Amino acid sequence: MLALSSPSGAGKTTLAKGLLAQEDNIAMSISATTRPPRDGEIEGRDYHFVDAARFEEMVADRQLLESATVFGHNYGTPAEPIEAALSAGTDILFDIDWQGMQQLRQRARADLVSVFILPPSAGELERRLRERGLDAADVVASRMAQAANEMSHWPEYDYIVVNDDMAQAQDRVRTILYAERLKRERQTGLVDFVKLLSDSQ
Amino acid sequence: MLALSSPSGAGKTTLAKGLLAQEDNIAMSISATTRPPRDGEIEGRDYHFVDAARFEEMVADRQLLESATVFGHNYGTPAEPIEAALSAGTDILFDIDWQGMQQLRQRARADLVSVFILPPSAGELERRLRERGLDAADVVASRMAQAANEMSHWPEYDYIVVNDDMAQAQDRVRTILYAERLKRERQTGLVDFVKLLSDSQ
Repeated sequence: MLALSSPSGAGKTTLAKGLLAQEDNIAMSISATTRPPRDGEIEGRDYHFVDAARFEEMVADRQLLESATVFGHNYGTPAEPIEAALSAGTDILFDIDWQGMQQLRQRARADLVSVFILPPSAGELERRLRERGLDAADVVASRMAQAANEMSHWPEYDYIVVNDDMAQAQDRVRTILYAERLKRERQTGLVDFVKLLSDSQ
Repeated sequence: MLALSSPSGAGKTTLAKGLLAQEDNIAMSISATTRPPRDGEIEGRDYHFVDAARFEEMVADRQLLESATVFGHNYGTPAEPIEAALSAGTDILFDIDWQGMQQLRQRARADLVSVFILPPSAGELERRLRERGLDAADVVASRMAQAANEMSHWPEYDYIVVNDDMAQAQDRVRTILYAERLKRERQTGLVDFVKLLSDSQ
């Protein structure tokens, strides 16, 4: 499980999409949500759209690896599809905030690698938020405060990637993915050590 | 500190040379030895050639990060040049066996990343040892037994790289180096988090 977090505007979503486009053996985690579908959103691709009763059931049955409430709607990560994918040898990419990351760390049985994406500077972050042109000035200010809060959680992450150049940042996330796949504990299934050892005795 | 270990014939030395040729910011650890220089070996490039009295002094003064005796000659890694290089921001590559690795882990103050290089199979390892044409059949058999002993220590390493293709194995070791440089604890000196956080408040 590869989890990416970042303050809004640091480029995490673009990074995640790039990684999925380049790599075969990794899939995005798809959240369940009680929020109604927006135009163009497809069930099972963007979200699993569920009603409040079903969501509560999933919480009660501990079917969610993490959950959060945002603007009155519930969001959560169903455990079962994640575990099925991991068992099949597919890595799973998460686009989550620090609270989701903490929950994942506590509840997920599989191992987790966490990457924090940082903007190159506070000024650059503000410029990006303004350039998106989505938000009024006071909303940009509020997002900057949120960003400071989010960034204060960097010590909880395994890796730090500064996104000063999107292609380079994407390479770095891919490098982390590849290196983590070479960790001893993830290679034991791939290398037949016992055979290698007994053959060479 | 990046330490590579492998059974003889798995290609570790070629890998290490390739990494040094491709990368600027990493240098090979140079051992001290009581063995006399061979033709072409240069003091300070291949080894630090010292006499037995000087070597004993280094051991007594705890100037060595690891040491071993092979065929009656002493070999050891002086701590001071390693620490100076690391302080200057240069990573250090070690080509050592599992015993050296254990000593490094215990004695080095700096952090250590260890990679075990494996041959793709026992048969391939034997073929490589034969092809080198350096050794008689009984020596090859003895090296295969040594290899089995060396390989039994793979669980002590952080990463496993199977050397079935030299270029790919070299890429993998480089990937590990790059990813480890992105680890949070190694980024704190590079990213001015405090400034980033206070500027965005």
